[in-house]
Amino acid sequence: MKYSREQLIETVSGQMPEKRWKHTLGVMQTAVKLAEKYGADPVKADLAAILHDVAKYWPVEQMKAVIEESSESNKELLQHDKQLWHSEAGFIAARKDYGVEDAEVLNAIRWHTSGREEMSLLDKVVCLADYIEPGRDFPGVHKIRELAQHSLEEALVAGFDSTISLLLTQRKVIYPLTVLSRNDLLQQLKIQSHGGL
Amino acid sequence: MKYSREQLIETVSGQMPEKRWKHTLGVMQTAVKLAEKYGADPVKADLAAILHDVAKYWPVEQMKAVIEESSESNKELLQHDKQLWHSEAGFIAARKDYGVEDAEVLNAIRWHTSGREEMSLLDKVVCLADYIEPGRDFPGVHKIRELAQHSLEEALVAGFDSTISLLLTQRKVIYPLTVLSRNDLLQQLKIQSHGGL
Repeated sequence: MKYSREQLIETVSGQMPEKRWKHTLGVMQTAVKLAEKYGADPVKADLAAILHDVAKYWPVEQMKAVIEESSESNKELLQHDKQLWHSEAGFIAARKDYGVEDAEVLNAIRWHTSGREEMSLLDKVVCLADYIEPGRDFPGVHKIRELAQHSLEEALVAGFDSTISLLLTQRKVIYPLTVLSRNDLLQQLKIQSHGGL
Repeated sequence: MKYSREQLIETVSGQMPEKRWKHTLGVMQTAVKLAEKYGADPVKADLAAILHDVAKYWPVEQMKAVIEESSESNKELLQHDKQLWHSEAGFIAARKDYGVEDAEVLNAIRWHTSGREEMSLLDKVVCLADYIEPGRDFPGVHKIRELAQHSLEEALVAGFDSTISLLLTQRKVIYPLTVLSRNDLLQQLKIQSHGGL
């Protein structure tokens, strides 16, 4: 890491409006709580949360350029909604500009919007924290917060369901990976429940 | 074709309960009407409709065996919900057991449940007829019938949306191709509407 936590916070918060930084503070707080509850590393959860939206307010052209120039990025993402680009650009920036080397942290930043198949524990923690941090207010968020009390996977399925429902209503394209993430979590829950019999 | 239309109807109707045959009659009637309205071949629409559910009441093991044995089938489908298997098994049976050689007809049978990216006109006609034939009664079917009066694509998007919503509610896995079909139709509508400006 190039920066102390304080320096990181100062630099990242300067790249977004105050409202979005408040959201980031909420994700940090919630991610750490979820990490402690479910056995993930709270220090990694905090770091991923600080950085998860670092690219959210970059100009679209900057996100695009960063994704195009990186040797390890998913270029196909550029065919999809711009709302998805900031996670990939943030993942690249976390390594390149902020010196983050931990693969778990980098992945949690990268997949915090869409999820992915076989999400890691830290992926789940950060993605769910992004859905339920205290500042979030959308139909169904209370239910997702309740589910988060007893199952990361149940809460994430409900989160992805709310995203997919919204996209249906808005007549927007649904990013296929979000559907694959949800399907995979449902399978994990099925296996857990069979295993528990 | 090995069979006359009458022989085909006799053989196919014998492979399903009366209720499902009544549904098939509805799909035949609706598919022909939609074909005439939107410029597809009504004879092909009728043939695809007769055969679309031929495998629906086969034992699961028979569907599985037919898909496994065919050189041209999508084996990956067997990892997904059994509800999807009958379209693939029906597609194989249409060629092998009934001597259908027309690729358009075979594809319309194959993709009538999930859709696919770049659906052909006949695919759309048969898939939509399956959603809205007069015997269908599910929340939203009236809206889809209304949309079918002016746009195949609008009506199909609404049909797929209703399927995806139902799977969300039922906590069932969503077949990714259905999402890709819907996304692709939305893009087609966007291009149509831009082209029309």
